[in-house]
Amino acid sequence: MSPEEFRHYGKQVVDWIADYLAGIEQYPVRSRARPGEVRAMLPAHPPERGEPYEQVLADMDRVILPGITHWQHPNFFAYFPANASGPGILGDLLSSGLGVQGMVWATSPACTELETVAVDWLAELLGLPDHFRTDSAGGGVIQDSASSAALVAVLAALRRAEGTTKRIYVSSQTHSALEKAARIAGIGSQNVRTVDVHPETLEMDPARLRTLIDEDVAAGLTPALVCATIGTTSTTAIDPVRAIGEICRERGIWLHVDAAYAGVAAVCPELRWINDGVAEYVDSYATNPHKWLLTNFDCGVLWVRDRAPMINALSILPEFLRNAATESGQVIDYRDWQVPLGRRFRALKLWSVIRWYGAEGLREHIRTGIALAQRFASLVAAEPDFEVRGHHPFGLVCFRPLRTDVLELMERVNASGALYLSHTKVGDEVWLRMAIGAPTTTEAHVDAAWAALRAAAQSR
Amino acid sequence: MSPEEFRHYGKQVVDWIADYLAGIEQYPVRSRARPGEVRAMLPAHPPERGEPYEQVLADMDRVILPGITHWQHPNFFAYFPANASGPGILGDLLSSGLGVQGMVWATSPACTELETVAVDWLAELLGLPDHFRTDSAGGGVIQDSASSAALVAVLAALRRAEGTTKRIYVSSQTHSALEKAARIAGIGSQNVRTVDVHPETLEMDPARLRTLIDEDVAAGLTPALVCATIGTTSTTAIDPVRAIGEICRERGIWLHVDAAYAGVAAVCPELRWINDGVAEYVDSYATNPHKWLLTNFDCGVLWVRDRAPMINALSILPEFLRNAATESGQVIDYRDWQVPLGRRFRALKLWSVIRWYGAEGLREHIRTGIALAQRFASLVAAEPDFEVRGHHPFGLVCFRPLRTDVLELMERVNASGALYLSHTKVGDEVWLRMAIGAPTTTEAHVDAAWAALRAAAQSR
Repeated sequence: MSPEEFRHYGKQVVDWIADYLAGIEQYPVRSRARPGEVRAMLPAHPPERGEPYEQVLADMDRVILPGITHWQHPNFFAYFPANASGPGILGDLLSSGLGVQGMVWATSPACTELETVAVDWLAELLGLPDHFRTDSAGGGVIQDSASSAALVAVLAALRRAEGTTKRIYVSSQTHSALEKAARIAGIGSQNVRTVDVHPETLEMDPARLRTLIDEDVAAGLTPALVCATIGTTSTTAIDPVRAIGEICRERGIWLHVDAAYAGVAAVCPELRWINDGVAEYVDSYATNPHKWLLTNFDCGVLWVRDRAPMINALSILPEFLRNAATESGQVIDYRDWQVPLGRRFRALKLWSVIRWYGAEGLREHIRTGIALAQRFASLVAAEPDFEVRGHHPFGLVCFRPLRTDVLELMERVNASGALYLSHTKVGDEVWLRMAIGAPTTTEAHVDAAWAALRAAAQSR
Repeated sequence: MSPEEFRHYGKQVVDWIADYLAGIEQYPVRSRARPGEVRAMLPAHPPERGEPYEQVLADMDRVILPGITHWQHPNFFAYFPANASGPGILGDLLSSGLGVQGMVWATSPACTELETVAVDWLAELLGLPDHFRTDSAGGGVIQDSASSAALVAVLAALRRAEGTTKRIYVSSQTHSALEKAARIAGIGSQNVRTVDVHPETLEMDPARLRTLIDEDVAAGLTPALVCATIGTTSTTAIDPVRAIGEICRERGIWLHVDAAYAGVAAVCPELRWINDGVAEYVDSYATNPHKWLLTNFDCGVLWVRDRAPMINALSILPEFLRNAATESGQVIDYRDWQVPLGRRFRALKLWSVIRWYGAEGLREHIRTGIALAQRFASLVAAEPDFEVRGHHPFGLVCFRPLRTDVLELMERVNASGALYLSHTKVGDEVWLRMAIGAPTTTEAHVDAAWAALRAAAQSR
């Protein structure tokens, strides 16, 4: 495809996306496709001859859109948001257009240096400590996800710890990515200890953590890492980082904070309390601009206080990557900060988002989501047939109907296509999760979602 | 950013990319930026207020382009190609515009099903065996890179093998990603055994492999995986997959094939010989359409003969991802086929590329690259001051000057900006690597590159 053909089709694709975003409310939020339905509409064999790109776009409408669950729909309230935004899309497009490989500094200096600037900017926007900035022993890096960030943290912690059998500590509310990381890293699920949580707040119990660590040390095992979560996936519970951190410091244990969803809320100074203890005690911290901060997936940021154990765990320098800049020690080679070797120029989208919205715009986006969540919680609280469960300092409100089967109610509203929400289990209870945070969601959407839920509960 | 603003700026970005691609030859191939230079041109702090997107585009020209090493330049001959193409960029753009999360089938059925179709199509295009197709016990999946594909293969193999100390086997020419995978997976570099290669062809020596395996088994260790490479990074050497496979079959060892660069050449029937033994003996096979097959990074494909050990190694199902489709067993949840949980809709770019070029166009692209490499090799062979080293069945030609210091010559031509090539070490010799394969590279570019190399050697 020549540059002129690209210019021609590129504008068609931009129009297609603009039309899609402008008209997104016409689609059922959750796809109604049945297993195999999309596949059955596609040819079993690849084409022998090339086709005009118009045919791809026609199939986007005919085949792909009916199989899409619309994560950018203003009535998408399931999981957490995976915010896309105009500048996020454009930053990704610039990255695809340049087509560079940023595996080491020398293979495209701007790819590495813009990433350093963007993650340093983000650390400043979130009020994270100076020792997470690149002009320190630590620094930040863009990962594809908080799962990969957790794996990198686990590998660094295992590298730093000395002992034959190493263990990591999570709570019953910690994301499954930590157990997956332990399995990938070869210590296995049997070396992941699960700390009890407070039955109401669902926060990790530091006293219980201390007991488990003491037991393990007495048994000759090596505690390597504790994962504290700021904003759990299930209910946005916040572990007591300071109290956990004191234990980790005493014992020399790596403290990782998984703030995948909620961490970006700290762009608002009034929410910086969520990071209490991070500056003093935390070795690594992950949050995902690709969830609630308007930056297209994939863009998760991991900061470390000391980059040495991570690089020791992940660095191998083959001959074909030797170069003067690496040998000078003056540059960062981000390939040593992640699992794969190759890297896209992901910093362009984070940089685009921060510049387009500015600190002001990012704060406004977060505050809007929180205000809508408060509004929704008030609506639920005022209705005797429902109750709000847990706290809701961010965009997620957990609640449940009192006179209707929860999952049956959820399936009914999700099947309607009018909105899409998800569920979680806490103890013996099933809760609905209403995760608000799309940039297009307004009070009218939240009110309509509530009306639909209420009507569904009444019409059982 | 509203859909209309996106429409407006999107077209500006498309124009920017089209202009960049049309004018790419005006730039020095390798960036001349010194460490810190790009960063110094950017503000130390993020903007408080948002900025118009024009300012980002202005900084693309002013700050970013001088820091770019132009991987899409027709005179980029370093590493292997990382082909971008118009349809690849457009497929990525559609993915960004939809902004869906394909972690499980239920979160966007089309994202999973199009991926299944695209990797099945690619298996057919490459003549890979039916048991790599999705309607079998095996199947294919898009990974970010061959490094991650190798890690997944190692994890599956470690899961399948029974024993306390497990080992993997590579050659001295195997990509460092395998050693990195062993370190990540917790078996460590000490359990990676390096098999000698034939001194001329640089192929793994199967007799030596057998000896190492026998030694290890006698010592009570468990051989878990052998990695054979089809087209090594250093010189595109091809390990004898059939002979290695016979040993693996006898001993029940997982055989992974890393065909990251060269595997896609099998779109041409006359090159299918490279996969001799794959149908009979191979458990997993990785190749990267993002190298030589016109699909923007990241798009690496991994096929497995039996998906069960991989899924057993990687699957954890938290409550919030439970859904009827998963429980029915009728769908694929690709999150269990990879390290991270989240996934972009990467199939769109592979699908776009296959449809735009067709099988015919893809074959023509590969054949053009090979013909240019043959041409370059002939030019080198005709010059008494240079010699061609190793074979060159693909787009890579290794060679060396006989009367000039190799690295000094390389640095001189790379610093000129006219072309960019890389080096490798084989035994005591340093070889230059001329990797041809950009869709814009023509005979004129290859001839000019040779003229520049020859002139530099003469002007020493």
